[in-house]
Amino acid sequence: MTTYTLEFITESGKATTVQVPYGISLSDAALEAGVELNIPCGGQGRCGRCAVIVEEGAVRRRSTLRLSAADVEAGYALACQTVVEGDARISVPPQEKIERLLETDKTAAKITVPFAYDPALHQAVRRVGLPIDPPSRADNTDDMSRLRRTLAQQAGINDVRARLSVLQKLGGALRSDHWNVTAVIETDTWDMPNGPPRLVDVLPGDRCDENWGLAIDIGTTSNVVYLVNLINGDVVQQAADYNGQIRRGEDVISRMIYAGKNGGLEELQKLVVGTLNKLIQRVARQQGVQPEEIHKAVVAGNSTMIHLFLALPPQSIRLEPFVTTVNQVPSVRAAEISLAINPEATVDCLPGVASYVGADITSGVVSSGMVDVGDITLFIDVGTNGEMVLGDGSWLITCACSAGPAFEGAGVVDGMRATRGAIEEVWLNAATAEPTYRVIGGGKPRGICGSGLISLLAELFITDVIDKSGNLNQTMDSPRIRVGEHGDEYVVAWAEETEHGRDIAITHPDIDNLLRAKAAIYAGFASLAQSVGVDLSDVSQLFIGGAFGQYLNVEKSVQIGLLPDLPWDKFHFLGNTSIKGAYMALLSRDMRAEIEVAATKMTYLELSADNTFYDQFTSALFLPHTDIDRFPSVAAALGDNSS
Amino acid sequence: MTTYTLEFITESGKATTVQVPYGISLSDAALEAGVELNIPCGGQGRCGRCAVIVEEGAVRRRSTLRLSAADVEAGYALACQTVVEGDARISVPPQEKIERLLETDKTAAKITVPFAYDPALHQAVRRVGLPIDPPSRADNTDDMSRLRRTLAQQAGINDVRARLSVLQKLGGALRSDHWNVTAVIETDTWDMPNGPPRLVDVLPGDRCDENWGLAIDIGTTSNVVYLVNLINGDVVQQAADYNGQIRRGEDVISRMIYAGKNGGLEELQKLVVGTLNKLIQRVARQQGVQPEEIHKAVVAGNSTMIHLFLALPPQSIRLEPFVTTVNQVPSVRAAEISLAINPEATVDCLPGVASYVGADITSGVVSSGMVDVGDITLFIDVGTNGEMVLGDGSWLITCACSAGPAFEGAGVVDGMRATRGAIEEVWLNAATAEPTYRVIGGGKPRGICGSGLISLLAELFITDVIDKSGNLNQTMDSPRIRVGEHGDEYVVAWAEETEHGRDIAITHPDIDNLLRAKAAIYAGFASLAQSVGVDLSDVSQLFIGGAFGQYLNVEKSVQIGLLPDLPWDKFHFLGNTSIKGAYMALLSRDMRAEIEVAATKMTYLELSADNTFYDQFTSALFLPHTDIDRFPSVAAALGDNSS
Repeated sequence: MTTYTLEFITESGKATTVQVPYGISLSDAALEAGVELNIPCGGQGRCGRCAVIVEEGAVRRRSTLRLSAADVEAGYALACQTVVEGDARISVPPQEKIERLLETDKTAAKITVPFAYDPALHQAVRRVGLPIDPPSRADNTDDMSRLRRTLAQQAGINDVRARLSVLQKLGGALRSDHWNVTAVIETDTWDMPNGPPRLVDVLPGDRCDENWGLAIDIGTTSNVVYLVNLINGDVVQQAADYNGQIRRGEDVISRMIYAGKNGGLEELQKLVVGTLNKLIQRVARQQGVQPEEIHKAVVAGNSTMIHLFLALPPQSIRLEPFVTTVNQVPSVRAAEISLAINPEATVDCLPGVASYVGADITSGVVSSGMVDVGDITLFIDVGTNGEMVLGDGSWLITCACSAGPAFEGAGVVDGMRATRGAIEEVWLNAATAEPTYRVIGGGKPRGICGSGLISLLAELFITDVIDKSGNLNQTMDSPRIRVGEHGDEYVVAWAEETEHGRDIAITHPDIDNLLRAKAAIYAGFASLAQSVGVDLSDVSQLFIGGAFGQYLNVEKSVQIGLLPDLPWDKFHFLGNTSIKGAYMALLSRDMRAEIEVAATKMTYLELSADNTFYDQFTSALFLPHTDIDRFPSVAAALGDNSS
Repeated sequence: MTTYTLEFITESGKATTVQVPYGISLSDAALEAGVELNIPCGGQGRCGRCAVIVEEGAVRRRSTLRLSAADVEAGYALACQTVVEGDARISVPPQEKIERLLETDKTAAKITVPFAYDPALHQAVRRVGLPIDPPSRADNTDDMSRLRRTLAQQAGINDVRARLSVLQKLGGALRSDHWNVTAVIETDTWDMPNGPPRLVDVLPGDRCDENWGLAIDIGTTSNVVYLVNLINGDVVQQAADYNGQIRRGEDVISRMIYAGKNGGLEELQKLVVGTLNKLIQRVARQQGVQPEEIHKAVVAGNSTMIHLFLALPPQSIRLEPFVTTVNQVPSVRAAEISLAINPEATVDCLPGVASYVGADITSGVVSSGMVDVGDITLFIDVGTNGEMVLGDGSWLITCACSAGPAFEGAGVVDGMRATRGAIEEVWLNAATAEPTYRVIGGGKPRGICGSGLISLLAELFITDVIDKSGNLNQTMDSPRIRVGEHGDEYVVAWAEETEHGRDIAITHPDIDNLLRAKAAIYAGFASLAQSVGVDLSDVSQLFIGGAFGQYLNVEKSVQIGLLPDLPWDKFHFLGNTSIKGAYMALLSRDMRAEIEVAATKMTYLELSADNTFYDQFTSALFLPHTDIDRFPSVAAALGDNSS
């Protein structure tokens, strides 16, 4: 086969050469060369962020979407949409760096055991110290039988089984400290509740004073790890970082598309496990624990994240009729997925309900306590996708809707993530339409994050700068209301105030995007309520989970019609309910069983099955809603303004 | 760290260079360089076969045993006993090649199902063809639940479990032939008899017309594989070859020593699996079967071979008080040990009893039928080690004794394996002491194999060339009786008759070795009988297993006192009873259970525990025995000669 020589030159001037076949994309070639390229849309040619410069050589541009004629003239090409037809030399511009998440979730510092934890009662993994009678000519039974016999006699644990890798270290462990060992035993994994106890590890000497487990939350954006002392149940260390998969797609759809490429699934699996392993090393080092002595992990995450974590092809999640490979994942061993804890440790991925209602939600439903409330409760987790659950514990109905990335700052011209430099809250002077705002980190603004956009949208509406359809009031006398490149827009910050020296504005298309996003969320839970004949005003509590929820302003969210108009004391912001559920399941078999029961009990409502959702959605495309009677507090606030 | 440059030059003139640290042995350096060296004694410096020539450079000889002063002068060094102290250039002489075993064991051609095989009744692995209703919006359960539901509805198989690697291929398999699949299901593995059924594989389309399994015998010397059609129970292909570990030691002790070296265990594991994988490829290709469609394997072998096959450190088998890591090995998956069949296939290693009574013997005890006989039966498997079992099925007692390698042709000056050129039978003219002999393959002789040695020893004794202590009769007038380099000897073949142009003789030390070997075997079963108060004449049947047994002449074996003096019709030569047991266990869960029961029932007699064995051994160091009354037929044959 003829191959061609590609030379990649990065910012630093470093040149990397690779031999590739005819027709390979520049992005695949870069991957082969080990040259880092961000591909947030997963290689669909949509985002334009993988642009490179073809210095010389034979390539063919399949698409130049997002590139101007001048860009193409200057040699720019989308790496994912450009194929090699001969030798070429490619310059790679500096790649966007994702800012590091806060090392520690500040709310997590307060984590305490959510019930009276008793390891003897709740914990499936335990350590048993054993002085063993050494073999002799008169008593020459094999090592494993000797250990089993001792476990039965001294600890009443019968019929213990061991996998090969434990047997391979057994003889050495027994003999290295004069036949004193600590057996690490696991009983009752969720998928084998009446199965025999399992020997997970054998440690020389008496090591019963320690016992370690991990709770893991795999978010599409960020991953969180808790190191848990299984003796008293405390979270002793925690760490978080962005999911390493982000560079191969920002949302689950892009990731699934990337997973369908050759080698893509394996790469995505390695990326997320790579992120987790770094976090594990960090928490273990901080605590002075050997990662090999972590003997259990429980994992929550949405269905796509769980599939990618386990290298399960996620394609069917994305395609009609949207099914997963498996919702109730069997226990896997850490070695099977290269998670850097004890290779024999059980890794228990919590159960999901459907393609877009995953283990993050079942975990949240149980950890939020909504299964025990008894009254009708609404649980909402808002991100790129909105997942919601309605019920009183005896029944639970759930659905998912795509809100799009507007609330995460994407699809909005000056949108950005909730990191340093983001405008997170805005107030408007009702008379002058002049804004004041707060910036994360306190410096000059660079853009507006989700909570800032909600706040801005509500203020614009309440002060009549926009009408209930989101149209800007061009009759208002303010230099901030103008016609820009994308049509009508409102300037939040003038160039001289901003970090990058450009105006920060919200445009009419931005407002349309935000309206569609909030309408999708509202239509989701309204459809749930309608399907079971419940009025939203009957909801006794509204639980809001997810990182985004932590920064949500209830008043503003109600004013734009994102959340239902309930008394403020009914709203509860619960933070990361997903990892909290994983943590509870790690501690207690009963909690794990409750999540299992909740997953089984949850009825999945397919929103595309009839017109209910569509009708609710179109009615919600206004501020706050077509039917203002649904939002009495907003009607009151508008007062005469809205009449 | 300072490293030195070693250059190895092989027969073909090819030079290989490797960087090694100070103090490494030449044999380890050769391993690192990928240069093949035979080390039959496992690197103990005993056999002298790893001799190399140090052309130049700094080395230190720790031992020169087996090398003459002239050899050392000429630069020879034992690779395993010579350490690197600087750069060096080493010539590697041509390495001995082990002749290929016969492709097919001739007796195996007649293998038939040993009972009325009914897969529905006996077989744990079955294929189920499933037309599955595809998912829809109205029925969007996950793939695994859909398969489980269909299996329950269409085949009555409930609660099927799948491991991760099967889930990873599930989605693709279901969709590649329009939701028609064949599920490969395993129920009732021996170590989880009441466990849930397991999904071993999912094949697109209807593939129920096939179902494949493997029976494997891992001998210290040779490995045998049967490809079995699990639908009708037939052995459709078989193949055998030498165990690839031979180059790292000929007997189990040498292998265990080699396993204790750095990387030795992993290397030995790879060597035996390498041999098996070649055999598997061969039988699969011959039958037109994909190795991935072999969904089960059952393995028999001695305890050391099973440990090495599973990479279990065998050290404790060799050291006081001689215990294994595990006698009842849990089911492992083929992927865990890199056996090249379906990675999820269960590999079931049959249970052993003790360090030197392994699964080859339990397998033989059941496949020979001795557990069903009802009368007192003696089962003997003779090789380097002699294993024997005595009992009537309701009770079984077993022991093992080291016969040494004399019967395999080692420790005898002109000894050799039973391959082409070996004298396999000898007759002596009683008057002239002139021999006639038969050579395997029919050509000129190169040496004498085990059966030839037994035959020769018996003839020498019966014709008074040696006395009952094994001393040569120097008064006899024959040029064949002479004093050679090793003392008294008898020439079997003159130089002009032999392939290598040297005399083939048996020496006095050879005869001593053979006497010790036969005495050990006799003392073994005599001790067994004594321990339970049974007289050997009460034995109703004598089963002889093992490849060696196939070529044993009963009359000659009795004459030298290797076997007890019983009527010839009580002797049954059963061939490879080890693989036969594996084959039966592969076919039937009941047979597997019977082997388990037999293993549990067998009482292990530790021969070194008291003086019984020693007394029996010293009494048996004569031809046929100190107590000639134990051998009435031999006494009769000797007639006046022996008086």
